Amino acid sequence: MTKIALVTTGGTIDKDYFDALSDYKVVESIIPELLARIGSGVEVEQHEICRKDSLELTDVDRAALKACIESLECDKVLVTHGTDTMVDSAQALGDMPGKTIVFTGAMRPARFLDSDGLFNVGVALGALQSKESGIFIAMTGQVFTPDVVKKNRAAQRFESTSE
Amino acid sequence: MTKIALVTTGGTIDKDYFDALSDYKVVESIIPELLARIGSGVEVEQHEICRKDSLELTDVDRAALKACIESLECDKVLVTHGTDTMVDSAQALGDMPGKTIVFTGAMRPARFLDSDGLFNVGVALGALQSKESGIFIAMTGQVFTPDVVKKNRAAQRFESTSE
Amino acid sequence: MTKIALVTTGGTIDKDYFDALSDYKVVESIIPELLARIGSGVEVEQHEICRKDSLELTDVDRAALKACIESLECDKVLVTHGTDTMVDSAQALGDMPGKTIVFTGAMRPARFLDSDGLFNVGVALGALQSKESGIFIAMTGQVFTPDVVKKNRAAQRFESTSE
Amino acid sequence: MTKIALVTTGGTIDKDYFDALSDYKVVESIIPELLARIGSGVEVEQHEICRKDSLELTDVDRAALKACIESLECDKVLVTHGTDTMVDSAQALGDMPGKTIVFTGAMRPARFLDSDGLFNVGVALGALQSKESGIFIAMTGQVFTPDVVKKNRAAQRFESTSE
Repeated sequence: MTKIALVTTGGTIDKDYFDALSDYKVVESIIPELLARIGSGVEVEQHEICRKDSLELTDVDRAALKACIESLECDKVLVTHGTDTMVDSAQALGDMPGKTIVFTGAMRPARFLDSDGLFNVGVALGALQSKESGIFIAMTGQVFTPDVVKKNRAAQRFESTSE
Repeated sequence: MTKIALVTTGGTIDKDYFDALSDYKVVESIIPELLARIGSGVEVEQHEICRKDSLELTDVDRAALKACIESLECDKVLVTHGTDTMVDSAQALGDMPGKTIVFTGAMRPARFLDSDGLFNVGVALGALQSKESGIFIAMTGQVFTPDVVKKNRAAQRFESTSE
Repeated sequence: MTKIALVTTGGTIDKDYFDALSDYKVVESIIPELLARIGSGVEVEQHEICRKDSLELTDVDRAALKACIESLECDKVLVTHGTDTMVDSAQALGDMPGKTIVFTGAMRPARFLDSDGLFNVGVALGALQSKESGIFIAMTGQVFTPDVVKKNRAAQRFESTSE
Repeated sequence: MTKIALVTTGGTIDKDYFDALSDYKVVESIIPELLARIGSGVEVEQHEICRKDSLELTDVDRAALKACIESLECDKVLVTHGTDTMVDSAQALGDMPGKTIVFTGAMRPARFLDSDGLFNVGVALGALQSKESGIFIAMTGQVFTPDVVKKNRAAQRFESTSE
């Protein structure tokens, strides 16, 4: 089995629908279960920071995310996060020498039939295993550094700001 | 949209079941369709070499694979391949200066509910976007070089031979 | 192909998630597409009355539903509907002599990986093909008449009121 | 919860793919697990007769199927079966007074992404709950009696022989 450290903060990737509320809510991550279902050979050590829409993340949450990553023995860390402020959180981490950290998330909840969630986790994992060190964002099938990427909300994709 | 070059050779990832035959057969790749279904933002330029179980691949097929990759303008190429001889085909490519080539496949057909196929394509794509150049194998959530990896058929995973 | 008349009114079965809104909305039914994807052999003639949470359905909507069913040449009609007032709408139809009408819906949107939506449509279709005439509700794997069924919101199921 | 009796005999609906064999095999039914995954509210009491392609079923298997159904306290029984000899097995049951028995199966294994398996089980269950008594075949979104139905192998559907 391949072991990875997964730090979860919430976001669309972890939203579920509740009939009794007629509403969506951010819940526990289904990513570890999906990785097991597909026989991926990937075992997850999960650390949950919070379950929030990324627009609701506070400086306290971001400090907790940074402290969690620093505390991990593992040098390679995958972070799932809401898409709206993913770039902000990645930038807020500052320098993390010796660590490789890749953020990902989803445009559609991972509990959907046609979700991009598990695929994006795959892209992030491929980047995590390939990059020497640094902080990256894996979305829309690409691997960005946080300083040159933005979410294009209308087009529903992440794109480079340097082109 | 993120454009990628996908060269397909067959393998379990592309197997389908046919009731009229009571049998599985390697068919056209469903990966481009699945990438569209999930709104991945990834657009595929596909090149089909063959539709074979990898145990049936010949030297002629491998020469065609090499010629196809050399002919592509794109320097980054994703190859889907059966798992039994994936390492052999990756080694047979020899030197491909200036190119980044990542092989992947699946233990269960991509048409299955709980397949590792699309996830593995994600891992391969993350590696493809992250590696400078070279030939790699993305399986079991890891990114290997072809000289130090083998398929462990009993355990249904790829693992390093150097540990 | 087996042709069926499907009248849609909205409800959880037809909810989708929109990242750009961070919210769900009732959208067009995905049931005809899913029936085609699985090669069900069932072809749908769809009539859309509205796209509403069933708590928002008005008397005008219910009159439109009744008028639509009466206008159909087909004597067998499947209706998808939100679960909260499904029983009310079925009762409001009153007498529909010569027609067999089966209502169904879902506790989780049909666009989810583990939705009950398409399965419930199957149960409803089996009832539709089997019942001589009358108005029925197919939920929780059972076939009820509208006078002796209620939604148990806490338990997330439909159950008989006559036991 | 809605309890149903499910008698399984194998067939395409229960086929799985094995990489280590490069082949499929009939395995344990995934239908009870899928019914739980989707929160169907249906609980299954399963009785396994055999795990065979229906072309391999013998008179001994069919006698065991009949004996099993007769031994069940429950008067309503769902049978999953390969499609090639489903009609033969249904006819071979002969008279089963007081029982309602519905056969179903699938053109694509229930473990596939786009399988008709779970949907067909839904149709069968709707018929089971609606029919007074008798033996039926629920395939292609229709409910047939065994004397007037045949599998059209080329068209991949079941159809009436009486039209």
